Amino acid sequence: MIIVLRPHISEEDLNRVVEQVRELGLTPHVSRGVTRTIIGCIGDEDLLREAPLLSLPAVETILPIEKPYKLAAREFTARPTHVALGAAAIGDGGVHVIAGPCSVEDRPMLRQTAEAVKAAGAVALRGGAFKPRTSPYSFRGLGSAALDMLVEVREETGLPVVTEVLDTRHVALVAEKADCLQVGARNMQNFALLTEVGETRRPVLLKRGLSATLEDFLLAAEYILARGNPNVILCERGIRTFERALRCTLDIGAVPYLKQETHLPVIVDPSHAAGRRDLVPALAMAAVAAGADGLLIEVHPDPDHARSDGDQSLRLDTFAAVMEQVRDVAAAVGRPSATPVG
Amino acid sequence: MIIVLRPHISEEDLNRVVEQVRELGLTPHVSRGVTRTIIGCIGDEDLLREAPLLSLPAVETILPIEKPYKLAAREFTARPTHVALGAAAIGDGGVHVIAGPCSVEDRPMLRQTAEAVKAAGAVALRGGAFKPRTSPYSFRGLGSAALDMLVEVREETGLPVVTEVLDTRHVALVAEKADCLQVGARNMQNFALLTEVGETRRPVLLKRGLSATLEDFLLAAEYILARGNPNVILCERGIRTFERALRCTLDIGAVPYLKQETHLPVIVDPSHAAGRRDLVPALAMAAVAAGADGLLIEVHPDPDHARSDGDQSLRLDTFAAVMEQVRDVAAAVGRPSATPVG
Amino acid sequence: MIIVLRPHISEEDLNRVVEQVRELGLTPHVSRGVTRTIIGCIGDEDLLREAPLLSLPAVETILPIEKPYKLAAREFTARPTHVALGAAAIGDGGVHVIAGPCSVEDRPMLRQTAEAVKAAGAVALRGGAFKPRTSPYSFRGLGSAALDMLVEVREETGLPVVTEVLDTRHVALVAEKADCLQVGARNMQNFALLTEVGETRRPVLLKRGLSATLEDFLLAAEYILARGNPNVILCERGIRTFERALRCTLDIGAVPYLKQETHLPVIVDPSHAAGRRDLVPALAMAAVAAGADGLLIEVHPDPDHARSDGDQSLRLDTFAAVMEQVRDVAAAVGRPSATPVG
Amino acid sequence: MIIVLRPHISEEDLNRVVEQVRELGLTPHVSRGVTRTIIGCIGDEDLLREAPLLSLPAVETILPIEKPYKLAAREFTARPTHVALGAAAIGDGGVHVIAGPCSVEDRPMLRQTAEAVKAAGAVALRGGAFKPRTSPYSFRGLGSAALDMLVEVREETGLPVVTEVLDTRHVALVAEKADCLQVGARNMQNFALLTEVGETRRPVLLKRGLSATLEDFLLAAEYILARGNPNVILCERGIRTFERALRCTLDIGAVPYLKQETHLPVIVDPSHAAGRRDLVPALAMAAVAAGADGLLIEVHPDPDHARSDGDQSLRLDTFAAVMEQVRDVAAAVGRPSATPVG
Repeated sequence: MIIVLRPHISEEDLNRVVEQVRELGLTPHVSRGVTRTIIGCIGDEDLLREAPLLSLPAVETILPIEKPYKLAAREFTARPTHVALGAAAIGDGGVHVIAGPCSVEDRPMLRQTAEAVKAAGAVALRGGAFKPRTSPYSFRGLGSAALDMLVEVREETGLPVVTEVLDTRHVALVAEKADCLQVGARNMQNFALLTEVGETRRPVLLKRGLSATLEDFLLAAEYILARGNPNVILCERGIRTFERALRCTLDIGAVPYLKQETHLPVIVDPSHAAGRRDLVPALAMAAVAAGADGLLIEVHPDPDHARSDGDQSLRLDTFAAVMEQVRDVAAAVGRPSATPVG
Repeated sequence: MIIVLRPHISEEDLNRVVEQVRELGLTPHVSRGVTRTIIGCIGDEDLLREAPLLSLPAVETILPIEKPYKLAAREFTARPTHVALGAAAIGDGGVHVIAGPCSVEDRPMLRQTAEAVKAAGAVALRGGAFKPRTSPYSFRGLGSAALDMLVEVREETGLPVVTEVLDTRHVALVAEKADCLQVGARNMQNFALLTEVGETRRPVLLKRGLSATLEDFLLAAEYILARGNPNVILCERGIRTFERALRCTLDIGAVPYLKQETHLPVIVDPSHAAGRRDLVPALAMAAVAAGADGLLIEVHPDPDHARSDGDQSLRLDTFAAVMEQVRDVAAAVGRPSATPVG
Repeated sequence: MIIVLRPHISEEDLNRVVEQVRELGLTPHVSRGVTRTIIGCIGDEDLLREAPLLSLPAVETILPIEKPYKLAAREFTARPTHVALGAAAIGDGGVHVIAGPCSVEDRPMLRQTAEAVKAAGAVALRGGAFKPRTSPYSFRGLGSAALDMLVEVREETGLPVVTEVLDTRHVALVAEKADCLQVGARNMQNFALLTEVGETRRPVLLKRGLSATLEDFLLAAEYILARGNPNVILCERGIRTFERALRCTLDIGAVPYLKQETHLPVIVDPSHAAGRRDLVPALAMAAVAAGADGLLIEVHPDPDHARSDGDQSLRLDTFAAVMEQVRDVAAAVGRPSATPVG
Repeated sequence: MIIVLRPHISEEDLNRVVEQVRELGLTPHVSRGVTRTIIGCIGDEDLLREAPLLSLPAVETILPIEKPYKLAAREFTARPTHVALGAAAIGDGGVHVIAGPCSVEDRPMLRQTAEAVKAAGAVALRGGAFKPRTSPYSFRGLGSAALDMLVEVREETGLPVVTEVLDTRHVALVAEKADCLQVGARNMQNFALLTEVGETRRPVLLKRGLSATLEDFLLAAEYILARGNPNVILCERGIRTFERALRCTLDIGAVPYLKQETHLPVIVDPSHAAGRRDLVPALAMAAVAAGADGLLIEVHPDPDHARSDGDQSLRLDTFAAVMEQVRDVAAAVGRPSATPVG
């Protein structure tokens, strides 16, 4: 950590900062420049991170040097993490697609969707049982009944299932039934929930919060990793910006940036970013071309009558066509082709 | 709700939209303009809110007319809501200040702070027991031991206490001990938590999320109101924008806007917005001048050694000076003066 | 335009609004809903756009129906606009790449770059003569000497040249020398400049402003079109958001959105969005996969010694490799292959 | 400037960076920490600012230490700059108000407004002659005819006039007629215009761009100062964020931050931030309470028939009432009272 001092400070002010750094158990190195003096602090940066140095009168800025995340950092491990989801290993270099309805509405629609997405090459089925909704008056999912339908459909189709968990009290139940626990964008900094899913060993699909920086995002993953669960899949799903033409702004640059910063797999959800079915394929292709390890796509057999997110759900036949193009784009950027059909 | 159709659509496409509106139980009114046709939908807008109309090929945009929140809307009640906090009634026209340390560190510091803020005119004591922290390696509060200290200090000073709750499993415990439950910015859309605090009758201090629109904010309040708890205090604490000179951008315009839109009291937290002690007083004065019903301020007897948020915590004497100025500014904008000293 | 009235307004208030609409030359249609009354206004929406209706006490919101841009709208013309740049037609369905140095530093480096990008398949050469710089102390380009170098290198290589114009007083000069005038992001709403380039018939490469909505962007294009210059190329180059890991957030969703909204060609500048050389290829591929009509890429024969933007400029050999992959990705999304080599 | 290297780099990579720093004429100081090595660079930071160091493989981040602005920095001068505007000195500690119509529509309305705002205590008259408009179809001002009206009304009332300049070609004309040149938000990084107004000695009212960081803002001021014109007034007028309930988000924290960072006066425009008349007074009071040196307010004798910005213009009587409250709030925060009436 570098402490930048204000210009023209007194020796006394300087000494006060130096002393406080020593009190914190670190070794200060003072360098006097032409106009400004800076103090480099050698030692465990975590000791400094919470120290209130910024409000010392002599201090202008604090420049952290170390990344605040450790287990999530690329340097932590030599090889990319593979997260097993049924037969697929997310992060193995292939482009893996998880697809399914926003919410589980009934068993027939779930089964029909599962069979169609499997036939088109998806490696896992998504389906909401507990739904986070902006309005308290919206449909909030079928809850544990939906979990049972997911289990049944997994048995019938062999597709592993991904579903969201909203409440610390449901983690054990959802972890028992589902193959992968989704933590939604609005819960990305629900630290109690992160801690709790970190206690399981189930894969966790962690969505980026609408205003989470990539550093915040990796720190949220760190919460899970720090509890001993190494199976974290990061999912970029669009951030909130001044632009409202689409529902969110898909931060496509996050994909190559995260691939450099972390060993964790990175997938993209084009459906929530677009908010409109017709723009989903273009965003999906962009994600694959940018180097994503996979996609999370909303699909519905009859989107016009979906109970939630119908506007952004692809029809089954469109999804199959998108999967064809995903394979072509993946090949064009030198990715081992996505899971083949059949 | 108004459905705006794309230019030059066919009769068949138009009929498909009209039919779908009818299926949803609403009455469509078609108006043909020079270049565009629009459909006004009379009836319960909630029926339409989730309907996937946007993805019909003929539909260009959906313009909602009704506000999605009802209980939180100004029209719901004739008079501003007063939320009782000890002897104070937040929302009664006065400017009420809640102050205290970021986290409860031990009993002596809590008591010292409580006595000082009470003497300076604060109406309640804040103090974190369970702390949400961006990094899993940061100090996360003393938990239930801190709750007990808050109870003891309330008994000694008479100041009601406000503390944050992070986990649905802790709501009953915190509601038993504290006078007011804080829901933090990062949990503003933790819908499970909102529902749970809505089941209590304790006042809830709801902080605006970093990327929450004011509509999202009011919908989060609606979750609590809809469960039967009318005691919601809204707290603007800065939003996340491109500007990073201060920690957050205090959305001062939210204050007069919310005062128009809702009957709920609106307070401002200048400490988290500034992130730096020296800028807190200016933001506090701005909030009062803009019409806030109160302030939430971090105060610490020795900020240089605080375990969290030391940089933004006011010293006890600075806080007392700020309170003097709060009274003057409140008077200047015609607010019944803040709770007087002694 | 729809005028939404506040709930429970008086007849008198309603009549005042109706009257004002009539005064403006429009026909009001009043519809009374269960809780709110709305007024549909038939006629030229432009008459209403500037009218101060929002501040009438009875008015809650104004919902525009018509798009404020006309000439730029998709409906204005049946076919996509092709903008001729040398032998290439930007917007013809192919993926066309414009490349070159941030600033023209001297003739040898310009010629070397031009030959290399031409060999790799670029259709035009970019090169800055007048440079907009955030700091007044930065290198601001060689000015008209650089224009002359661009002309010479065009003669030698046959590559048309694109260069930025910053000042209304330079438009005639730059239009005389260059094949395409770039209007930079920071001048996207320099309306005097837009008007002036609209008076020429030179192609204009219009970059999106850092905080311009897509509607603002199309209105800026409209300024140019409205002066009679139909040759506008839109260029997405990243917007400013809270995320600062990359220099800007490339709004990849803008590509498919603009392709629907307008007949104008849409290209992407991955260099300024990334701000870092190593992330440029991933963003370039994403742009092509999302449907962009072309790319604008910074290339330098020796980026480590570039006078500006060295960090984000590709080396000549990397550029050639990127071009190979651009062709593959273009093919994968069914675009007629980019301009072939040789 | 501090160069932070990636972990585990080779000696060779380290040496390459050290060498490049030396080539740039600076002295590198290498410090080896536990996991990371950093290089402190002593000397003129400007030499490094443009050097493409970030793209060296060994470099992780560049941390600037010096501020990029010099003349605008607080340290440049011992005392706050006073900008003379008629009899008032903006920046002298008082709260000075500039008011007038968005655009000059005709002489009677201008004179009526001038007299009213003068009577209420305003120190200068604003009025648009050349108007920047988002749409090319909007009213763009009366141009030089309006300048003449401003001159006439100044003669009649004694109020100095502030008007916007949009085009480098108009700077001489506007500087001849007006007392203060406004550079609008959308031209804040129109560097040609900044340079040109820097060549005059007229006071410049520089508005912050919608997506300008405070550093960008001060660098824009630096352009003007660097050309020899010391008379710059900074004006915060709201930034663009995800929140669209008000037209812009007034960045109230910018006021105390800028007052620390620069010696230049800082005023606030609550009218453009709010976009709605009813919210203007609250924002105006917040600005004064936060420490602004003045306000820029849109006022119109008949806002319902204004040719532009009618929605946000105050009526003359409301303005007078606002001025009363401005004086009270200024007094409450210890500011020498605003220019008194009469």
